[in-house]
Amino acid sequence: MAASSALQQSDLEVASLGPCRVKSPLNLSTTPGDHRGDFVHANARMIYEPRFRAGCELNPLSLEHAGARQQIFFEPAKTKAAIVTCGGLCPGINNVIRTCVFELMYNYGVREVLGIRFGFEGLNPRVGRPPISLTPELVEDIHHKGGTILGTSRGPQEAKCTVDFLLDQGVNILLTVGGDGTQRGARAIAEEALKRRSPLAVVGIPKTIDNDIRFCFMTFGFATAVGEAETVIDRAHVEAKAVYNGVGLVKLMGREAGFIAASATLASGEANFCLIPELPLELDGDGGFLAKLKRRLAAREHAVVVVAEGAGQTMLAQAEGEACDASGNRRLGDIGYYLKGRIEAFFKAEQTPVSVKYFDPSYYIRSLPAAAVDSLLCERFARAAVHAAMAGKTDMLVGLWHNHLVHVPLTAATGVKKQLDPESELWTSVLALTGQDKW
Amino acid sequence: MAASSALQQSDLEVASLGPCRVKSPLNLSTTPGDHRGDFVHANARMIYEPRFRAGCELNPLSLEHAGARQQIFFEPAKTKAAIVTCGGLCPGINNVIRTCVFELMYNYGVREVLGIRFGFEGLNPRVGRPPISLTPELVEDIHHKGGTILGTSRGPQEAKCTVDFLLDQGVNILLTVGGDGTQRGARAIAEEALKRRSPLAVVGIPKTIDNDIRFCFMTFGFATAVGEAETVIDRAHVEAKAVYNGVGLVKLMGREAGFIAASATLASGEANFCLIPELPLELDGDGGFLAKLKRRLAAREHAVVVVAEGAGQTMLAQAEGEACDASGNRRLGDIGYYLKGRIEAFFKAEQTPVSVKYFDPSYYIRSLPAAAVDSLLCERFARAAVHAAMAGKTDMLVGLWHNHLVHVPLTAATGVKKQLDPESELWTSVLALTGQDKW
Amino acid sequence: MAASSALQQSDLEVASLGPCRVKSPLNLSTTPGDHRGDFVHANARMIYEPRFRAGCELNPLSLEHAGARQQIFFEPAKTKAAIVTCGGLCPGINNVIRTCVFELMYNYGVREVLGIRFGFEGLNPRVGRPPISLTPELVEDIHHKGGTILGTSRGPQEAKCTVDFLLDQGVNILLTVGGDGTQRGARAIAEEALKRRSPLAVVGIPKTIDNDIRFCFMTFGFATAVGEAETVIDRAHVEAKAVYNGVGLVKLMGREAGFIAASATLASGEANFCLIPELPLELDGDGGFLAKLKRRLAAREHAVVVVAEGAGQTMLAQAEGEACDASGNRRLGDIGYYLKGRIEAFFKAEQTPVSVKYFDPSYYIRSLPAAAVDSLLCERFARAAVHAAMAGKTDMLVGLWHNHLVHVPLTAATGVKKQLDPESELWTSVLALTGQDKW
Amino acid sequence: MAASSALQQSDLEVASLGPCRVKSPLNLSTTPGDHRGDFVHANARMIYEPRFRAGCELNPLSLEHAGARQQIFFEPAKTKAAIVTCGGLCPGINNVIRTCVFELMYNYGVREVLGIRFGFEGLNPRVGRPPISLTPELVEDIHHKGGTILGTSRGPQEAKCTVDFLLDQGVNILLTVGGDGTQRGARAIAEEALKRRSPLAVVGIPKTIDNDIRFCFMTFGFATAVGEAETVIDRAHVEAKAVYNGVGLVKLMGREAGFIAASATLASGEANFCLIPELPLELDGDGGFLAKLKRRLAAREHAVVVVAEGAGQTMLAQAEGEACDASGNRRLGDIGYYLKGRIEAFFKAEQTPVSVKYFDPSYYIRSLPAAAVDSLLCERFARAAVHAAMAGKTDMLVGLWHNHLVHVPLTAATGVKKQLDPESELWTSVLALTGQDKW
Repeated sequence: MAASSALQQSDLEVASLGPCRVKSPLNLSTTPGDHRGDFVHANARMIYEPRFRAGCELNPLSLEHAGARQQIFFEPAKTKAAIVTCGGLCPGINNVIRTCVFELMYNYGVREVLGIRFGFEGLNPRVGRPPISLTPELVEDIHHKGGTILGTSRGPQEAKCTVDFLLDQGVNILLTVGGDGTQRGARAIAEEALKRRSPLAVVGIPKTIDNDIRFCFMTFGFATAVGEAETVIDRAHVEAKAVYNGVGLVKLMGREAGFIAASATLASGEANFCLIPELPLELDGDGGFLAKLKRRLAAREHAVVVVAEGAGQTMLAQAEGEACDASGNRRLGDIGYYLKGRIEAFFKAEQTPVSVKYFDPSYYIRSLPAAAVDSLLCERFARAAVHAAMAGKTDMLVGLWHNHLVHVPLTAATGVKKQLDPESELWTSVLALTGQDKW
Repeated sequence: MAASSALQQSDLEVASLGPCRVKSPLNLSTTPGDHRGDFVHANARMIYEPRFRAGCELNPLSLEHAGARQQIFFEPAKTKAAIVTCGGLCPGINNVIRTCVFELMYNYGVREVLGIRFGFEGLNPRVGRPPISLTPELVEDIHHKGGTILGTSRGPQEAKCTVDFLLDQGVNILLTVGGDGTQRGARAIAEEALKRRSPLAVVGIPKTIDNDIRFCFMTFGFATAVGEAETVIDRAHVEAKAVYNGVGLVKLMGREAGFIAASATLASGEANFCLIPELPLELDGDGGFLAKLKRRLAAREHAVVVVAEGAGQTMLAQAEGEACDASGNRRLGDIGYYLKGRIEAFFKAEQTPVSVKYFDPSYYIRSLPAAAVDSLLCERFARAAVHAAMAGKTDMLVGLWHNHLVHVPLTAATGVKKQLDPESELWTSVLALTGQDKW
Repeated sequence: MAASSALQQSDLEVASLGPCRVKSPLNLSTTPGDHRGDFVHANARMIYEPRFRAGCELNPLSLEHAGARQQIFFEPAKTKAAIVTCGGLCPGINNVIRTCVFELMYNYGVREVLGIRFGFEGLNPRVGRPPISLTPELVEDIHHKGGTILGTSRGPQEAKCTVDFLLDQGVNILLTVGGDGTQRGARAIAEEALKRRSPLAVVGIPKTIDNDIRFCFMTFGFATAVGEAETVIDRAHVEAKAVYNGVGLVKLMGREAGFIAASATLASGEANFCLIPELPLELDGDGGFLAKLKRRLAAREHAVVVVAEGAGQTMLAQAEGEACDASGNRRLGDIGYYLKGRIEAFFKAEQTPVSVKYFDPSYYIRSLPAAAVDSLLCERFARAAVHAAMAGKTDMLVGLWHNHLVHVPLTAATGVKKQLDPESELWTSVLALTGQDKW
Repeated sequence: MAASSALQQSDLEVASLGPCRVKSPLNLSTTPGDHRGDFVHANARMIYEPRFRAGCELNPLSLEHAGARQQIFFEPAKTKAAIVTCGGLCPGINNVIRTCVFELMYNYGVREVLGIRFGFEGLNPRVGRPPISLTPELVEDIHHKGGTILGTSRGPQEAKCTVDFLLDQGVNILLTVGGDGTQRGARAIAEEALKRRSPLAVVGIPKTIDNDIRFCFMTFGFATAVGEAETVIDRAHVEAKAVYNGVGLVKLMGREAGFIAASATLASGEANFCLIPELPLELDGDGGFLAKLKRRLAAREHAVVVVAEGAGQTMLAQAEGEACDASGNRRLGDIGYYLKGRIEAFFKAEQTPVSVKYFDPSYYIRSLPAAAVDSLLCERFARAAVHAAMAGKTDMLVGLWHNHLVHVPLTAATGVKKQLDPESELWTSVLALTGQDKW
């Protein structure tokens, strides 16, 4: 992650509302070996980069370790929490809600948790969507359902108005479940509250089906998405093989990052080309994608192409510019249709029959309930967020770094998105598997 | 099935190549009660309409019962069979191929079975796609895979040329797996062979994911398709409920028949509107679909709409006519996009925000492997087709009537497609469940 | 179905509470061709056996056709219904409950539906489990869940006490969801009510995962069960092939009927032996199962064996008698463990290593939610039961005969269970596929 | 991992066959930023423990980083590799085989890869199971199938004989796919070869569905297993709730480690008790499991209990000792049956009816094909193993540490198994969710 070079240790220091003077009610200990789980020490940290070259220095950057603290900031019986879910659907949101409610109420003893309706809109009283009260009974059965029981929407609300509303409602803890945009909104709220010196902890829980949030190796929903995407690629493979010169074309999620496309390509083992936003997409010329596809079809009579929705956008912007009259709104930026059209036109000019079957499964995937591995991640993120908030941490999100949960300041986590490094093991494996550079 | 009124018993008489003088090698008996399966008697029939009104006459029409005959036409050791798969994909094609090969070779002792490549094209030597030899080893593992190992294509080939090729190859039995178009092609081949008095039995195995072949209550692949379509509707429901005034719009297969749309609507229990080709689609006016949708959204804030691809085509043809410049090829006749656009335009004019999520899962569905219940149907159709062909039946297809397998002459089975009767129990149940006529 | 020979037409006449003088509130017509669903005529019937031999007479037995009647017995606004679910779990029970509630309340306008708790026990006030009130809101989301929201139990309660309770509660309609035992209990209740001339309609909805209720070609849950059983057989096949002389042994449901075992064997296409209760099970001797298994293993080095739980019970009773000291309660009658032991002992004596992997998936299967095809069946059975009950039919169950819904008197439907005919197409196909008689 | 305290850096130094003088044929670079994947530097390492307390020293232990090296030991064209799969089934073995073959042959240009049949037995010529030749064509479609196409067996063969055989066959690389026992066998082979100074690289690929191999955060198959185990727990929950005082009892894999039980408990969110091998199991007394279960049932009328197969073995050994006459072989150590019996006996003595439904899904789970997230792990492990072997590393296995692939000497990785730390975040979460200590 190249961006790391610009980071200072001070960028990674997490804001707190103040000293922690309340004893945690959790049944944990500080003694290793007593068969009771341990509180995480206030100074526990994890190094940012555990890899080094023998004989060289380690990168000294480190992150705060997440987990339950022995001394907390909020007195549970007097604390009121709120949960808001924003942006597009992602498998696991309901699991996060359920675990937050359980941890806050059953384990910490918080008496009231509000569920904010339809994203940040529900924090704006002018929209007229009052919060609901979340109870263990209400959330008991929600974790095997897709979507979010709270509803969602896109876009921020004005921070001042939001903080007014939250303080008005007596809320001390706001858990924001969302992606980069959501967490930027959360940051504005946290900073407004800090400015006012209000005891409002704002803790982000990263939700990004694209897996593009910094300091998060993996976020919930991603594994479920890759699993379903694999299934779609396999079906595209069936379609491609069933006819002469069949091409299965699958567009997958990933506006700025190709993680789903690359991972589903690897998991499926049936794709022959994987196109991602991080690399330029050349269609024409002897080294371009169309010529490669032609050679592939000549050799094997079928092909499967996976394309991330954000791939080829520069090219697409040009094409749209040139052809703005003939194309409607929905084609704008749709690399899948564009590619389908270009493939068909190319082979028509070559007088070679092809049959392109196009798959666009985004909505099927994001509305799924969480697969087990994502349910586990939801559990981890949700409990860590509650621990952080109860300890008075704010203006931060829960990250997952080298498989350990950490606290990441929102200033460091937002604004720049994580992308797939084309020199990484992941992309190297995609090339090793597909052999797409060799045609 | 209104068409039945025009049928004569003579329409339902199946053509045979001639008298059956060969003893069947199957280990069956003619004695009930001996714990060995029984050959079906040459005169076994099933009445066409088992329902009647007490005191009234039964409809005398009847169909020939399918099943193994004690005397068969072809001497197995001298018989060569061929299988061809045509048209769009449908779950279960590979199961049919596998069972045909097993029944022909293991049970009857036929020595050679050819697999015709890429549909009827493979029967035209000028296309240059020679058949492959199908063996039990080759087909051992294919039944849990979607698609067709033989490949497929659309459209017929000239019957004369096809029969020349088949006779040239020494083929005695041609099993044609396909829908109405395929079986019309089969009929031309069968009639050309009958005209030449060539010993070539042509037996159709109905393949129609739309379930629109006459004399077939149910065809393989339909249950698998309904199961996956149900899943898609459920996900559309998740999407619809996750936002304010969310509309989940699902286009399902069914060019001329609404069976998949209606059945998936019932199975899911989450759709609020189901639109099928058999009924006119009115969008405008107070009794039109858009006004109903508006009332539904006002009451419940979300809606799920299922539309069969063949619904509203008259209306669509008009709309396309009016807007032919602005729309490309792929929109032509696409009721899903058309409806999405109309819904969005209507609510924009009403200044009511809606969020329409559109699902078009056809390729996902048709490329699936067969679910168990369809595997069973494949078994039944495939063995019945082999029994019929070995007995010298020709110019017919295997039907499923009141849950029993029957022989149906291709003249009766093709040309007119089965449609959903809007006065039937199925459609009445859809209305009872969705309440779509009451908004 | 051999039992049919003993039936008289009078056995198939359904009891009614009396003349139907109330006009049905359903929006149906009696005019074919008006695009509105049709009421079923009071005299509509379906012949019992639609198969015949050309030139011979049809069997004159017929059954009453199910469906909505134009004139009904109960005035909806004054009617109170109750639903009880009994016996073992089966996929689809919650779908049945949901559709009954919807049809009764939304379409007929019945104001109150009671849910009886934990089977017939809930009809005995001494047990102390009062009914709950079922509303559309309560049942809205239950149809994608396994089990029964009402709870279940086994065994009847005394009919007199039950009828007292129901009349006390003002119940006019009792819908009994259960198998043969349940419907015998329902029959006692219906007859007690008829004896008292009380206006209590008792209508059975057949629930039998074994598919062993007479006059029911297919019952809900069976297809789901076969689908999951197929999956288990496929996994047993993986286990069997992974080691030298691996034997995958799968016990499936079917106390007295081998339908699940036979159907799952066919659907899977991977089993080599299928053992069912309808046929004697010989283990020893050259023609016995163990010798056949030995020859199979010698030839192919692995084998998959499917056994219905009711197979070999005579033999087992003997074995248990002989070995009563060494075996505990749970082995009593467990053909799976018995077979595993006998296979291992046999090959040990033969000094041939085998590795038997035993699968007993009954609980996994019966707790599943209904697959789409079963959801459709649930819809059909539930609505037909409501129509029958509203029309004052009683002492009957809803059957499915040649794919049409019929009314069957409980006297004819209960007492004798449906079994798999070893001379039927189904069993013949199992033998054709497995070749198990040839080893 | 307490065992780490005993580790020295020298324990973590990986053995190599010698200097690497061959240029890697892989299309990688050593220049970051050129959009080509990078070779891993020979000195690349990862610290063993990235967590520390601010102000304290980092643990200096480090591991060798895995990945493709620029200089390799074996000349591909003259190299012969072999793959052996041992022990119980685990989802993903075929994926590993496929990727090894692809990476060796397509990317490195190795000409021959042998598939050893039925585990280490296939390395003993006296057993008479000669290897098969693995080609890309042969392995093309195997990755979506459960099991192992090579077959497997348990137990080692004599190292001397094995090395004789391998050298005889001209094998330079042996990839051993298996668990702790297998890797101990691999170690003996590697050390025998090192002793003889034979150029035979032995590289282990960890396969343990229990996730109990040291230096492996996660191994392939584990996520698939947890996913299926979650499903089973959910079905047990359905069964438990369907009857009065229903108890769903699920035995899951985990001889010495409770990872599957704990993870599936968390993923499901429906279990009320989770019993693992790492903690003592007390049944009796007021603080014992049975008294807790009684209180839970009194409060909620149903319960779900998850037990790892290795839980309570001390207790069980005693019980078995006492009751050795009455129990057969298969009950020996079966905590599931034992617990079922004890629960039933306890509540019988309490005169409280309970209904225990027992689930034992091990074979269903281990025979599954790999879910997507495991397919990705298989990819990673397999390629890393090939890279290591081509670079002449030996007597090591590929580990996964803080989500990075590393080389671990077999001396450090084998002999002691990884266990679930009862003070870890994972177990703390299980207690937080189930509340099992509070009853």
